Amino acid sequence: MPAKIHVTIWNEFIHERQDEKVRAIYPHGIHQLIAGFLSKHQGIEARTATLDQPENGLTESVVNQTDVLIWWGHQAHDQVSDGVVRRVQNKVLEGMGLIVLHSAHHSKIFRALMGTNCSLRWREAGEKERLWNIEPGHPIAEGIGDYIELPHAEMYGERFDIPDPDKVIFISWFEGGEVFRSGCCWERGHGRIFYFRPGHETYPIYHHEQIQKVIINAVRWAKPRVMIADKCPMAEPLEKIPKYKPQNKNKSQ
Amino acid sequence: MPAKIHVTIWNEFIHERQDEKVRAIYPHGIHQLIAGFLSKHQGIEARTATLDQPENGLTESVVNQTDVLIWWGHQAHDQVSDGVVRRVQNKVLEGMGLIVLHSAHHSKIFRALMGTNCSLRWREAGEKERLWNIEPGHPIAEGIGDYIELPHAEMYGERFDIPDPDKVIFISWFEGGEVFRSGCCWERGHGRIFYFRPGHETYPIYHHEQIQKVIINAVRWAKPRVMIADKCPMAEPLEKIPKYKPQNKNKSQ
Amino acid sequence: MPAKIHVTIWNEFIHERQDEKVRAIYPHGIHQLIAGFLSKHQGIEARTATLDQPENGLTESVVNQTDVLIWWGHQAHDQVSDGVVRRVQNKVLEGMGLIVLHSAHHSKIFRALMGTNCSLRWREAGEKERLWNIEPGHPIAEGIGDYIELPHAEMYGERFDIPDPDKVIFISWFEGGEVFRSGCCWERGHGRIFYFRPGHETYPIYHHEQIQKVIINAVRWAKPRVMIADKCPMAEPLEKIPKYKPQNKNKSQ
Amino acid sequence: MPAKIHVTIWNEFIHERQDEKVRAIYPHGIHQLIAGFLSKHQGIEARTATLDQPENGLTESVVNQTDVLIWWGHQAHDQVSDGVVRRVQNKVLEGMGLIVLHSAHHSKIFRALMGTNCSLRWREAGEKERLWNIEPGHPIAEGIGDYIELPHAEMYGERFDIPDPDKVIFISWFEGGEVFRSGCCWERGHGRIFYFRPGHETYPIYHHEQIQKVIINAVRWAKPRVMIADKCPMAEPLEKIPKYKPQNKNKSQ
Repeated sequence: MPAKIHVTIWNEFIHERQDEKVRAIYPHGIHQLIAGFLSKHQGIEARTATLDQPENGLTESVVNQTDVLIWWGHQAHDQVSDGVVRRVQNKVLEGMGLIVLHSAHHSKIFRALMGTNCSLRWREAGEKERLWNIEPGHPIAEGIGDYIELPHAEMYGERFDIPDPDKVIFISWFEGGEVFRSGCCWERGHGRIFYFRPGHETYPIYHHEQIQKVIINAVRWAKPRVMIADKCPMAEPLEKIPKYKPQNKNKSQ
Repeated sequence: MPAKIHVTIWNEFIHERQDEKVRAIYPHGIHQLIAGFLSKHQGIEARTATLDQPENGLTESVVNQTDVLIWWGHQAHDQVSDGVVRRVQNKVLEGMGLIVLHSAHHSKIFRALMGTNCSLRWREAGEKERLWNIEPGHPIAEGIGDYIELPHAEMYGERFDIPDPDKVIFISWFEGGEVFRSGCCWERGHGRIFYFRPGHETYPIYHHEQIQKVIINAVRWAKPRVMIADKCPMAEPLEKIPKYKPQNKNKSQ
Repeated sequence: MPAKIHVTIWNEFIHERQDEKVRAIYPHGIHQLIAGFLSKHQGIEARTATLDQPENGLTESVVNQTDVLIWWGHQAHDQVSDGVVRRVQNKVLEGMGLIVLHSAHHSKIFRALMGTNCSLRWREAGEKERLWNIEPGHPIAEGIGDYIELPHAEMYGERFDIPDPDKVIFISWFEGGEVFRSGCCWERGHGRIFYFRPGHETYPIYHHEQIQKVIINAVRWAKPRVMIADKCPMAEPLEKIPKYKPQNKNKSQ
Repeated sequence: MPAKIHVTIWNEFIHERQDEKVRAIYPHGIHQLIAGFLSKHQGIEARTATLDQPENGLTESVVNQTDVLIWWGHQAHDQVSDGVVRRVQNKVLEGMGLIVLHSAHHSKIFRALMGTNCSLRWREAGEKERLWNIEPGHPIAEGIGDYIELPHAEMYGERFDIPDPDKVIFISWFEGGEVFRSGCCWERGHGRIFYFRPGHETYPIYHHEQIQKVIINAVRWAKPRVMIADKCPMAEPLEKIPKYKPQNKNKSQ
């Protein structure tokens, strides 16, 4: 039996405490809902972490015990400490998986790993979204048909300021006229990263069965394949090298 | 007549002042030598900037007047201010070109744009390097034959911890038994980035005619195609959207 | 003054002779209309070739004098001779540019260069299409704003069975609910290939100013950077190799 | 228990019958040796096919029962029938895995899937090769350390005329001074393709434990994730489209 995948779901957990409409959809927070449906799957063990906990809930011990980290943030990106961001980034580069949801496109951790601003155009009008599955053979799209339809969603439109993904899994169509690369994969260091667009807090997106299926698939895809710490070693030669005698000064080779 | 390309060559400029052997090769600093051979080419206007200048020589005014920035650093990466790094990164994302030389693989600016540690294995033994040109059609390889041979070079070996390049132009063979992706291209935001491996301060690498040719080619390739400031705009719909009425609470879509 | 770019526009030229509605839009054929607007641009010299000519209009002499080939076909892909396809493919691999328009996604030459079936979903309902420009810095998108809008177009929808493009320039939104990667770049051998979706024969797509602008931009982008014939040479060693004495039989290394 | 992976090892099987030195290393043919070590692994079921069999051993029935096809050819690429090549290509595009070994870089099937000539430079001098593992997290490199060393190998050098791989796993260093992308991954259609350089018939390469390990890993990586037949369907609109009334003739949109 393969080892369990240890997933930590991180949430800034602010909307759900401040806004009754959000609380109506996610009474215990988005993180708890995600932990809930993940935990039903054997092979996955889910825990949560939130912004207001010591070290933003992501102590060295928590990060060390995490195989895949799921990140949801929206209005408090700046409140995450730089040290925590660097700790998480290092762990991803060593091999930990990272799943970045919706408005976390502007989180410090995603921007640090991408190297870009990760900006986009947006609109909140409760419009229809259809995510086309353009990689039916990819494990993240397993069991998803031709597309996922969301009756009401916030719109994110191109240009999405990201490095070219290794693989684009979903492209979204929006009722208002825009398109978006909504499911994108990258490898950085030894870790895998998946950005997944759906998820605004005022729509019950994470209650949607196919959206849950994609997140479960992504957890399995992103689990570590190796864990290798950063190093920059001096290396002895493998072949014989003639002894080097520097030439006279300032002479072109 | 096309506009001039304004190049700024940045150097931490420490080795050349501390070490007589380096000074013998680069009496006025690596930056001055590079500025010198670039300036001979019409269409290129070169200036220099160094670590010890105010704002590390990269004030807003300097950065705003730069089309392509060339970066050389080795032992003082940490002394570059974070504000300057962020300013340069933003400018690259807007469209400025960046050429990263040799030991600047570990510079703050390169790591910030790559999102990875950019580590590698290395050895200083004055061994032979041969850079194979695997993209003879690429403008950076224009005029370079099958390979460039350097009689004495520091060794950098794989694994080089970088995101998959958009294009690998050169792969190096080392006498001691290693290989390395020595010429790599990326696009980030609207800017172009080229990493070029050769260049240790104790070998006269930048006096080498073909190395100079690659740097000139890279300057031309990396020059801005657009300059677009970061934005994340709210967008009016382009198509008619039915008015959204939220459903009852906590109901799956 | 740079040399002229010699463009050949190939058209199967059947619809325009069989169907009055098509002839009404393209009285002299799609190829002549494209040649017409290209010829207005200094630096471009356009000629045409059609299926019914000897060797499908693409004799060795014609191909040898072509820098960029534009291909339009729809109902007669199979009538193009395999020898002509191989000749064109070889020339692209040597460095010639190729621009593949609309229904030529199923042409022999495009499929030969891609290695895939290049299938897609489609519908002819005269619906609205909006091509989002996701690479405003790319030369093919130069002068195009955020998007191109076509009031009436045939629909092509994902999944488009192509190898991952080196660069996706345009993603289309369709009124009927689909999306499509409508402007895609590849390099094969030393040549550049651009697939551009718009262009059904019953809509006046190639009369549209922005569509013409994209094609002109693509011609400039795709022009040869080198021309290198295929070879697979035996190579003398560059370093000294000890003389090889085969070991006893059937012995593992 | 997961289903078995059905592997077919194809060999032109000529060298081993004509050349005593080759027979000494591979008495029953390269295909039998590969089938032998694969069969020792539970979860893999191996069979073989050769050029001289009816339909080159790759009847529709054989291909339909194959999850991963391994291909070895050298001197008789042209004797493989075009119909068999097209059958195999179609199956790869539907989802079958393909592993292309050594001199099969010039096989019809590999060239058909790549769309390029797949040429390279080469030398047969029994020199040392070291394959550097640049993707230690990739399943194909699992259990391989920093590199694989082959005491005697044929040399293949860059430029290797292939489309940019999705992932380069190994880069080779050769004693005679060349480098080569020796382990390359692509996806085409729904299938996965791995090119693996080592394997000349006059060296006991496939007896080497780490080479066997890479091939076993590659079989597991390349096994089908889906099997989807080619289609190009007419699609009903998902959204309401206004009825299209064509405009007057020859009028720009």
